[in-house]
Amino acid sequence: MEELLLTTNNLWMMLCIALVFIMHLGFSLLEIGLTRQKNTINILFKNIFIICAGLLLYYFIGFSLMYPGDFNGYLGFASFGLELPSNGLTSEYAESGYTFWTDFLFQAMFAATAATIVSGAVAERVKIQAFVLFSIIYVGLIYPIVGSWLWGGGFLEEFGFYDFAGSTIVHSVGGWAALVFIYLLGARYGKFKKNKSLAIRGHNLPLAVMGLFLLWFGWFGFNGGSVLSAQPGLTSKVLVTTSLAAAGGGISAALITLFLYKSLDVTMFINGVLGGLVGITAGADLMSPTQAILIGLIAGVVVILAVRLIDRLHLDDPVGAIPVHLFCGIWGTLAVGVFGEMASWNQLWIQFSSLLIIGSFCMVSSVIITLVLKYSVGLRVSNKAEIEGLDKHEHGMQAYADFGIQNN
Amino acid sequence: MEELLLTTNNLWMMLCIALVFIMHLGFSLLEIGLTRQKNTINILFKNIFIICAGLLLYYFIGFSLMYPGDFNGYLGFASFGLELPSNGLTSEYAESGYTFWTDFLFQAMFAATAATIVSGAVAERVKIQAFVLFSIIYVGLIYPIVGSWLWGGGFLEEFGFYDFAGSTIVHSVGGWAALVFIYLLGARYGKFKKNKSLAIRGHNLPLAVMGLFLLWFGWFGFNGGSVLSAQPGLTSKVLVTTSLAAAGGGISAALITLFLYKSLDVTMFINGVLGGLVGITAGADLMSPTQAILIGLIAGVVVILAVRLIDRLHLDDPVGAIPVHLFCGIWGTLAVGVFGEMASWNQLWIQFSSLLIIGSFCMVSSVIITLVLKYSVGLRVSNKAEIEGLDKHEHGMQAYADFGIQNN
Amino acid sequence: MEELLLTTNNLWMMLCIALVFIMHLGFSLLEIGLTRQKNTINILFKNIFIICAGLLLYYFIGFSLMYPGDFNGYLGFASFGLELPSNGLTSEYAESGYTFWTDFLFQAMFAATAATIVSGAVAERVKIQAFVLFSIIYVGLIYPIVGSWLWGGGFLEEFGFYDFAGSTIVHSVGGWAALVFIYLLGARYGKFKKNKSLAIRGHNLPLAVMGLFLLWFGWFGFNGGSVLSAQPGLTSKVLVTTSLAAAGGGISAALITLFLYKSLDVTMFINGVLGGLVGITAGADLMSPTQAILIGLIAGVVVILAVRLIDRLHLDDPVGAIPVHLFCGIWGTLAVGVFGEMASWNQLWIQFSSLLIIGSFCMVSSVIITLVLKYSVGLRVSNKAEIEGLDKHEHGMQAYADFGIQNN
Repeated sequence: MEELLLTTNNLWMMLCIALVFIMHLGFSLLEIGLTRQKNTINILFKNIFIICAGLLLYYFIGFSLMYPGDFNGYLGFASFGLELPSNGLTSEYAESGYTFWTDFLFQAMFAATAATIVSGAVAERVKIQAFVLFSIIYVGLIYPIVGSWLWGGGFLEEFGFYDFAGSTIVHSVGGWAALVFIYLLGARYGKFKKNKSLAIRGHNLPLAVMGLFLLWFGWFGFNGGSVLSAQPGLTSKVLVTTSLAAAGGGISAALITLFLYKSLDVTMFINGVLGGLVGITAGADLMSPTQAILIGLIAGVVVILAVRLIDRLHLDDPVGAIPVHLFCGIWGTLAVGVFGEMASWNQLWIQFSSLLIIGSFCMVSSVIITLVLKYSVGLRVSNKAEIEGLDKHEHGMQAYADFGIQNN
Repeated sequence: MEELLLTTNNLWMMLCIALVFIMHLGFSLLEIGLTRQKNTINILFKNIFIICAGLLLYYFIGFSLMYPGDFNGYLGFASFGLELPSNGLTSEYAESGYTFWTDFLFQAMFAATAATIVSGAVAERVKIQAFVLFSIIYVGLIYPIVGSWLWGGGFLEEFGFYDFAGSTIVHSVGGWAALVFIYLLGARYGKFKKNKSLAIRGHNLPLAVMGLFLLWFGWFGFNGGSVLSAQPGLTSKVLVTTSLAAAGGGISAALITLFLYKSLDVTMFINGVLGGLVGITAGADLMSPTQAILIGLIAGVVVILAVRLIDRLHLDDPVGAIPVHLFCGIWGTLAVGVFGEMASWNQLWIQFSSLLIIGSFCMVSSVIITLVLKYSVGLRVSNKAEIEGLDKHEHGMQAYADFGIQNN
Repeated sequence: MEELLLTTNNLWMMLCIALVFIMHLGFSLLEIGLTRQKNTINILFKNIFIICAGLLLYYFIGFSLMYPGDFNGYLGFASFGLELPSNGLTSEYAESGYTFWTDFLFQAMFAATAATIVSGAVAERVKIQAFVLFSIIYVGLIYPIVGSWLWGGGFLEEFGFYDFAGSTIVHSVGGWAALVFIYLLGARYGKFKKNKSLAIRGHNLPLAVMGLFLLWFGWFGFNGGSVLSAQPGLTSKVLVTTSLAAAGGGISAALITLFLYKSLDVTMFINGVLGGLVGITAGADLMSPTQAILIGLIAGVVVILAVRLIDRLHLDDPVGAIPVHLFCGIWGTLAVGVFGEMASWNQLWIQFSSLLIIGSFCMVSSVIITLVLKYSVGLRVSNKAEIEGLDKHEHGMQAYADFGIQNN
C-alpha cells in the first residue's frame, strides 16, 4: 500500500521531469526565434551546453549544495556526487514520497533554467567563453546556494518566505543575473541610435511560438511537480491556476499592446503568456482560479511596462527575459502576500524582504563574476563578429545553409 | 485504497490534459505549414488567442453550460465560474474518479479545439476581428451547448447517441462552422481561375509534419483521456485502436493519391493520418484492432474524395480542415453503427439522426453569427491586404524577417 | 490492490508509449535538419511512411515473430494479428504487469525505429521504392526475428546476453543495415572529390536541435519503459543514468571537436548527446551515475572517431547514423561487460559474441535484400534527380515554397 503510493507519486514526478526537461527546448526555440538568423547556431550551442553541463554540475556539486541536510541555514554541502540513502528514498518524503533518484533529477532539470534565462538576455553579442564560464559558476554555485536558503531548509524557510515553484528561487535568480550581465555587456550594435531604440526583428516567429507552447506544456511539470507528490487535489488545482494565469497574461498583454500601440503584436502576446506563467509560479497552490486569472492579467501589464522601462534605460534584452522572468518573478512573489490563502501584510513584508535579500545576493555575485570575466576572457565579441554574426565567427556554420540571409 | 485509485486516475487525466494541450501547438504548426509565409504571424496570433480566450471563456461560462447538472436536456447553466463541490471531486466519478479541477481542465482543453478547426479553414483572408468574435461565441456558447446534449447528460444521451471522444461533438462541430464560414467568406484571391482550381502551396512543410506528429501524440490524451479513468484494459486498447487507425488512414490516403495522381504527396499523407485519427475518435473504445484499421483505411479514402469534392464546389479550405474534421468526423460517427461492439441498424440510425440534429444546429448558428459579423465588422480583409499578406497589414510584422519571400 | 498496481504500471507504460512515439518526430527533424532543403519532402514522406507501415506490419506479423511464445529459440511465429489472452494481460507480467494492448503498442513503437535509422543514412539519393521495400522487410521480418532471440526468450537470452533497452537489439540492428545499404548505394554526388571528403551542410540546424531534444525526451520512455513496470527505484534510476550519459556524451564530443578541429560544432554536439543516449541504453539499469557519465564520455569519443573513420572509408552517412547507432550501440553493449552490476570478463565475452552473431545476421540479410532491390527496382535515383533534388523529382513539391534555394 505504502509501496503503491510511492510508485504513483514517483510516476507523477518522473512525468514532471520529462516535462521540465522539454522546457529547455522551449527556451532554445524562443531565443532563436526572437533573434537574428546569423546568431542561431550560437544560441543553440549555448542551450545544449547548458542542459548537459547543468546536469553534470548539479550531480557533482549543485544538489549537495542545495540540499545539504542539516546546515547553518546559509551555506552547507553534503558530499560530491550523490549519496544514495540506504532505502533509496528521499529522506523527507520517505513515507509516501518518491525516490532519491527522482528527487535529484527533478531538481537538476530546474537548475539549468537559471542559466537559460541569462542566455536569452545576452544573446547576439556575448563571447561564448564568457557565457560558458558564467553558466558554470551560476548553475554550479549561486543557484544552489540561493535554493538551499528556502527549499534546502535554510534561513528563508524559517523566516516564512513562500515560493511554491520558484518565481524567485528560479526565475528571478536568472533574471537578476541577466540584468547585471546585459548592463555590463552593453547593447547590441545598432540597437540604440541617437537615443532612439530600434526594433531588431526576430528571424523565425514560428519557432518562438513553438517555444511558447512547449514552455507552457513544460510548466505543467514545473508547477505540477512542485507539489512533490501526486496528491490529486493539489496537483490538479495547480494545473488549473497555471493555465488560467497563462491565459490571463496573454490576453491582457495583447489588449494593452493593442490599445497602447494599435498593434496585434505576437511577441507581446508570447511574453504576456510567459509572464502569466512566471507570475503564478510562486503561489500556484494557494490561489483560486479567479485569483490566478487576476495574477495573470496583472503579469501581462507588468511585462508590457517592463519592456518599456528596459528600453528607456537603454538596456538591450533581445528576448524579453528580464520583463518576463525578473519583473513577473517579483510580481508573482509579492502576489503571495496579496492574493490567496497566505495573503497578509506580514506575508507581503516577508516576501518583499526575501526578494531583497536574494536580489542583492544574486546581483552582487553576478557583478563579481561578470567583472572577473570582463577582465579575463572578455565579455563581448568583436564588432566585426557581431555584425557578421556569431555563427560565422565563432562556429564557422550557418543555421540555414540553403537559404540566403537578406536583412541585417 | 479508494484514495489511491483516485490518485492514479487523476494522474492519468492530468497527463492527458498536457497531451491535449499540445495539440494546440500541433494545429498551429499544421496551419502555418500549409499556408503562405505572408500570413504566418496572423495564424499564430489567432492560435495563441484561441487557447487563451478558450480557457477563460470555458472557465467563466462554457463548463457550466456543458455540464449544467440536472437540466431539461437542451439548455442549462450551472453558474458563472467554477463551483467546487465540497469534496473537490467530480460528482459523477466520485468513487474512483478524479478531481473537479482535472475534470474542468480536461474539458477546457477540448473546447478551444472547435475554433482551431475553423481557424485553418478561413486562413489567409479572414479579418481578425471577425475570427476573434466568431471564436468567442462559438467556443463560449455553441460548442458547450452541443456538448451538453451528449456529454452533459442531455437529450442525445437519452436518445442513445454514442460519440466516445468527439468525432461529432468536437470535430464535426468545428467542421460545420468551417464549412459555413468559408462559403460566406469566399475563396482566396487566385485560388480559382476560369473555373480551374490552382494549388496554393504551403510555405513550410516540415512544420506541417511536425504538427501532424504532435497531433497524433496529443490524440493519445484526447482519446485515452476520454476513458475518464486509468482503467488499464480500456485506456490501452484505445491507444492501440487510435494508432492503428492513424496508420491505416495514412497508408490508404498515400496509396490512393499515388494511383489517382501518380504523386507521392506528403500533404495528402498528413491529411490521411489525421482523417484516420478523427475517424476512430467516435468509437475508439468499441473497435477491435482490425476494425480500427478498416476505419482508418476508409477515412483515408474519405479525405481524398472530400478534398476533391470541396474543390469542385469551389470552396477554399487551405489546410483541408473540412475533409479531415467534418467528413471523417461524420464517417467516424457512422462507423459506430457499422463496426464494433455497438454496431446495428438501429444504432446507425441513431448516429445518423444525431449527426443531422447537431449539423443543423451548428450550421444555422454559424450562418447567423457569420452573417451578423459580415454586416458589422466585415468578414474579409481588403484585396490589397490579402495580396500583400495579413502579417504586414494586420500585424506589421514578418514571420521570417531575415529571409526573403520569393513566391506569391 | 493487484488491480491497482496493474493500473499504475500500465499508466507508466502508456506514458512511455507516447514518449517513444514522439521519437519518430525527433528522428524526422534530425534527418531533415542535417540534409539539404531539396530533399526535405522526401525524408518527411519516408518517416511518416515508416511509422504508419511499421505499426501495421508489427500488428500483422512482427509482434508474433518477436514474441512467439514457446519456440525453438531461433524462429517462431504465434499468429497473424493479435491474439488477446483471456485476461487481457501479457502472460509474463500478469501478476502486477500491464495489459496485452500496452505490451503490443510499446513494442510496436520500437519496431519502426530500426528503419528510421537506415532512413537517415541513405538520405538524399535513395530511390523511394527501394527504401519502402527495404523497410517493410526489415521492420516486418529481420528486426522481430533478432528481437525474438533475446526479448522473445530465444537462444541469446539463454546464452546470457544482456541488452536492457536495445543498444544492440534496436540501435545496432538499424546501424548494420545502414552500413550495408550506404556501401551498396554509394556516396552522394559531390561528397568525395579527388579523394577528399567535402562537407555538405544541413539546411536547418534549428530543426536538427529540436530533433535532438525530442529524442532525449523520448528516451525517457525508451529506457524508462524498458523496466517494464513503474517500479520506482529502477525507473527513476534509469532516467538518471540516461540523462547523465547524454550529458557526458555531449560534453566530451564538444570538447574533442574543440581540441581536434578548433571548432564549436553544433552537429558534433548533437551527435555526442545521441551517442551517449545510445551508449547507456544497453545497461541503463545496471550503472551507477558515475558509470553512466563515463559511458557517455566515452560514447562522445566513439562518435567523433567513428565519424572520421566512416569518412576515411569514403562512406557517406549524411546524418551520422552509423557513428551514433552502430558504433555507440556496440560500445554500449560491450560496456555492460565493463561497467556496472554485471561487469565481468565472461559477460564481456557473451556481449561480444552476441554482437557478432546479430551483426552477421543483420549484415547478411541486408546484403541480400539490398542486392535484390538493386537488380529489381534499383537503389538509386538518377543523377539529374539527385542534383535537382528528390522533392522535385519524386514528389513534385517544395518544402519551403515561399523561400528560395540559394546553395546546392
